[in-house]
Amino acid sequence: MSVAIVMGSKSDYPMVQKTEQVLKDFDVPFTTKILSAHRTPEETWAFAVKAEENGVELFIAVAGMAAHLAGSLAAYTILPVIGVPMKSDTLSGWDSLLSTVQMPPGVPVATVGINGMENAALLAVQILSLKYPDYKEKLRKYKRNMKEKVIKDGKEIEEK
Amino acid sequence: MSVAIVMGSKSDYPMVQKTEQVLKDFDVPFTTKILSAHRTPEETWAFAVKAEENGVELFIAVAGMAAHLAGSLAAYTILPVIGVPMKSDTLSGWDSLLSTVQMPPGVPVATVGINGMENAALLAVQILSLKYPDYKEKLRKYKRNMKEKVIKDGKEIEEK
Amino acid sequence: MSVAIVMGSKSDYPMVQKTEQVLKDFDVPFTTKILSAHRTPEETWAFAVKAEENGVELFIAVAGMAAHLAGSLAAYTILPVIGVPMKSDTLSGWDSLLSTVQMPPGVPVATVGINGMENAALLAVQILSLKYPDYKEKLRKYKRNMKEKVIKDGKEIEEK
Amino acid sequence: MSVAIVMGSKSDYPMVQKTEQVLKDFDVPFTTKILSAHRTPEETWAFAVKAEENGVELFIAVAGMAAHLAGSLAAYTILPVIGVPMKSDTLSGWDSLLSTVQMPPGVPVATVGINGMENAALLAVQILSLKYPDYKEKLRKYKRNMKEKVIKDGKEIEEK
Amino acid sequence: MSVAIVMGSKSDYPMVQKTEQVLKDFDVPFTTKILSAHRTPEETWAFAVKAEENGVELFIAVAGMAAHLAGSLAAYTILPVIGVPMKSDTLSGWDSLLSTVQMPPGVPVATVGINGMENAALLAVQILSLKYPDYKEKLRKYKRNMKEKVIKDGKEIEEK
Amino acid sequence: MSVAIVMGSKSDYPMVQKTEQVLKDFDVPFTTKILSAHRTPEETWAFAVKAEENGVELFIAVAGMAAHLAGSLAAYTILPVIGVPMKSDTLSGWDSLLSTVQMPPGVPVATVGINGMENAALLAVQILSLKYPDYKEKLRKYKRNMKEKVIKDGKEIEEK
Amino acid sequence: MSVAIVMGSKSDYPMVQKTEQVLKDFDVPFTTKILSAHRTPEETWAFAVKAEENGVELFIAVAGMAAHLAGSLAAYTILPVIGVPMKSDTLSGWDSLLSTVQMPPGVPVATVGINGMENAALLAVQILSLKYPDYKEKLRKYKRNMKEKVIKDGKEIEEK
Amino acid sequence: MSVAIVMGSKSDYPMVQKTEQVLKDFDVPFTTKILSAHRTPEETWAFAVKAEENGVELFIAVAGMAAHLAGSLAAYTILPVIGVPMKSDTLSGWDSLLSTVQMPPGVPVATVGINGMENAALLAVQILSLKYPDYKEKLRKYKRNMKEKVIKDGKEIEEK
Repeated sequence: MSVAIVMGSKSDYPMVQKTEQVLKDFDVPFTTKILSAHRTPEETWAFAVKAEENGVELFIAVAGMAAHLAGSLAAYTILPVIGVPMKSDTLSGWDSLLSTVQMPPGVPVATVGINGMENAALLAVQILSLKYPDYKEKLRKYKRNMKEKVIKDGKEIEEK
Repeated sequence: MSVAIVMGSKSDYPMVQKTEQVLKDFDVPFTTKILSAHRTPEETWAFAVKAEENGVELFIAVAGMAAHLAGSLAAYTILPVIGVPMKSDTLSGWDSLLSTVQMPPGVPVATVGINGMENAALLAVQILSLKYPDYKEKLRKYKRNMKEKVIKDGKEIEEK
Repeated sequence: MSVAIVMGSKSDYPMVQKTEQVLKDFDVPFTTKILSAHRTPEETWAFAVKAEENGVELFIAVAGMAAHLAGSLAAYTILPVIGVPMKSDTLSGWDSLLSTVQMPPGVPVATVGINGMENAALLAVQILSLKYPDYKEKLRKYKRNMKEKVIKDGKEIEEK
Repeated sequence: MSVAIVMGSKSDYPMVQKTEQVLKDFDVPFTTKILSAHRTPEETWAFAVKAEENGVELFIAVAGMAAHLAGSLAAYTILPVIGVPMKSDTLSGWDSLLSTVQMPPGVPVATVGINGMENAALLAVQILSLKYPDYKEKLRKYKRNMKEKVIKDGKEIEEK
Repeated sequence: MSVAIVMGSKSDYPMVQKTEQVLKDFDVPFTTKILSAHRTPEETWAFAVKAEENGVELFIAVAGMAAHLAGSLAAYTILPVIGVPMKSDTLSGWDSLLSTVQMPPGVPVATVGINGMENAALLAVQILSLKYPDYKEKLRKYKRNMKEKVIKDGKEIEEK
Repeated sequence: MSVAIVMGSKSDYPMVQKTEQVLKDFDVPFTTKILSAHRTPEETWAFAVKAEENGVELFIAVAGMAAHLAGSLAAYTILPVIGVPMKSDTLSGWDSLLSTVQMPPGVPVATVGINGMENAALLAVQILSLKYPDYKEKLRKYKRNMKEKVIKDGKEIEEK
Repeated sequence: MSVAIVMGSKSDYPMVQKTEQVLKDFDVPFTTKILSAHRTPEETWAFAVKAEENGVELFIAVAGMAAHLAGSLAAYTILPVIGVPMKSDTLSGWDSLLSTVQMPPGVPVATVGINGMENAALLAVQILSLKYPDYKEKLRKYKRNMKEKVIKDGKEIEEK
Repeated sequence: MSVAIVMGSKSDYPMVQKTEQVLKDFDVPFTTKILSAHRTPEETWAFAVKAEENGVELFIAVAGMAAHLAGSLAAYTILPVIGVPMKSDTLSGWDSLLSTVQMPPGVPVATVGINGMENAALLAVQILSLKYPDYKEKLRKYKRNMKEKVIKDGKEIEEK
């Protein structure tokens, strides 16, 4: 288990599966947990402080509203924490974004865009690829595929 | 010690003293702590879980930016937590306000306005007055004084 | 009657019932009123100034748009007022939130998140529990149940 | 006394004097009061309900933050209420603007821009001019002067 | 014809009919026009400058996005202009609100809330009532009905 | 005269001079006017409708708050209109930006950033260069100089 | 090919067709490409630097979220770039608008409103009409038709 | 050279030195460049595509306004890119934040808070520590020092 995906609520799981899928595509071992900074703070703490010795190399924290999950993990560990602010019912994710990204000095969270499920996974792979160079070729291939997809889409439109 | 004022950073202390002054004016016993949800999470946890047996009846949590302090205390205890979002250098307190008030179901924070130092203290007294009716007369007097001050100000202007 | 839930408009009632349900779950006696700061200001005033002698110990004020209801109650009484800003049709609740939380010094409103129906009730119970310690055990149980629900949800996902 | 200028706090008076000056320039009789929706609600109510028989024809309400003053006056009377949202220390007037303008159906406030001291007075004169046609010529002259000032400014710049 | 309702686009008409209905309920003579500050600027100008001699006593200007209609009318005449910012597809009415309310000194627009169709009409009646006192009794009756409706709603809920 | 710079108020002139300087650097003939959509609407109209026959090829419109100047010019002419939203005292330019850019279909304004004085001039030169190819070489040189400046700055820092 | 419409993603094509339609109505030769500043940066660069010699006279760049496409084209060329910020799923286009319009000095983007598909095309025609006067008469006709449509709509409503 | 700090403008250098200082404290080799996505796009591209073979392991990109620098680097490479949105003169950094964090799927940027100079460096060290475990002990020490500083601050205040 290299990546720990942690979400604040079961209702985030359908979105989290997009993150899982990208990690699977890159063959990155991961585990997925529900841990809430507000409802299971002790469990969150217990998981975080043991994470490193349990093989976790980085966290992806998924939460909405006053989204403290990423910040809590960042408080407990020295592992990189990627924060994914979720779109919320009332304020569209402005609350989640600011609660995740505006961390005080000393405790960074690597924040991706609102509902940035794929990007969280890709950033995780980029980070891991420093240590595990095998991911580098996969990332290059992913980038090439993405580019080819755009080029193919463009051709279809030009042919119209 | 009835109220625990907790601030996330020493730099908040000049503002916090306004809160202290109101509590002093009402003769409410209080203690003031620096505890950071992000920099001293274990100390925050340790203080919070022991607070009730140490005589704390409610918290006033003062923090800025991705302000998780009030939410963290609310996660650990069943005591009321009053959250004061501090004006921040870059986003004027929009980040602090949303991080404090937009709590998920199950973990409320009683949020006052940005830099609402006096109101946090007054709200604390109002809450305590349910149990300690002596504060009620003081609150009525405070309200009368406030009213008289406005009326006096108004007369001064009308005389011009 | 310990808690007075006051809503600005009948259209808020479906949401208000969530607040009522939580209070029922905690066996907190409550009354529910429609009182509008703008459409029935005298009735609001009359109810507020008599509230304390009628046994009201705190208010939960539910209103949207330029939401003055919580602030009006706070102006008339020294009881704690919990304000619930409602999501609005046009500005998603930004208007309701700022109108409720940004109170001037001297007149606090304990604001919960937009549409924070459950949290308003829970905050009420937390406040009442200072005086009525029986609620404390119920709050602890509620917190435990909430935690167990998250843990159970987490297990379900890990088993997938 | 035709216009009642009502401000929420003495600290608004330096700005309010700009409003007074425009009314003086138009020879509109006015009175200036400090009345706070939150700190002197009864006095606000008493003044509002007697205003019409005391000769008030419209209100200019000046307030900041969760600015309920204009809305409170509008709740108590059927006279037109002009609301001036004041720039606030923390949120620049976003809070004041939304609290003043976003009134629910049935209780309008005629809102001018943030710190719109002169425009509040001019709007008052425009409204009064329906009944008192003498103001019409003065308004036309004001408009001409304003125009000539812009034209003169423009010539100065073109001559550079 | 006392009130001129002017809308920027035919698509606003379903909403404008709510404004018309209130004016009908008060027996206020009105006319409804489509005039666009951007698409028919000359027609807007021609209508505005003749409005006073054609018996218009005030304008209600309804527009969305970069809503210049109210400001344009205010530029051309000395009659009161009520501006109604319409909810827009992309920015929910933030653009319409700011474009309508934030007028420069010298050219006020009496702005009501986003989609404030009824309030625009009521404000018009309040303004006209200074000159035509017959509207005053109708406004008082409207206020009473509104109040009774709230009280009746409240009773229904209490009976549940 | 190829470019007409039009500003809403003399107070914008210090900023407008930055725009003038860039046009001078490119030897683009221009004229600078003060014309207010709200205070001199007829003069604005008169200037706009004659602009084309007077040799104006495009407008740069500089205005703040509810900034209708660019939109007004766009309403009157078929020439391109570049809009520069000015930073405002109260809302930092959010009002100016939305009032300028959010134009309804049919009447575009080419909006640059808030206080984008230089960019307005450069965009004007880019547009004119389609017709006057001599500007193209100057634009390329400008771009080269800008690049060289950045490269030189970078060297200075690397040498530290 | 005079105009190059460039979109960041195939999903923008249904909206882009509105831009194409306006250009067709004006008989402006155009080409439509999919080029992503982030996914095909080299292709974007290659297209941009060759654009001028390939007959492109201006760009219309359509992109959402952190919309860098218009800015990238503006960085590579001296041709005018019209930027169309697209409404986004999470932040309604606030992100797209600011990413497109707030360009640093030296690299302007002519930004139209969010989802301003028609306005982007019209602005293109206005710009081209400086060089190709034949478009001028078409623009005048377009403006007349637009005006007549509004007048006709107005008559329909008045007849009701 | 392990980290490449890239800033969009020389004016960012005083802030960037805070980032450099943290990297120096951790003995992380770094280089600092000025490269502008808009003013030196080719140099940015050239540096980015060679970065990996030149030993760069991750980027810290510092830029304001329509901040495309981080996104541009992320487009060209598969290395992790940390984006630091800078506070801007007009919109306080809202523009920089959204332009940096709201990246489309496939091209992540690890965004820290506005002006988050220290956090960018710390995040870089956390990421590098996966590969270079020597940094781990330093990070733990940094965390301990930070905690001790807060505890010491707290004691000072309690002693007052």
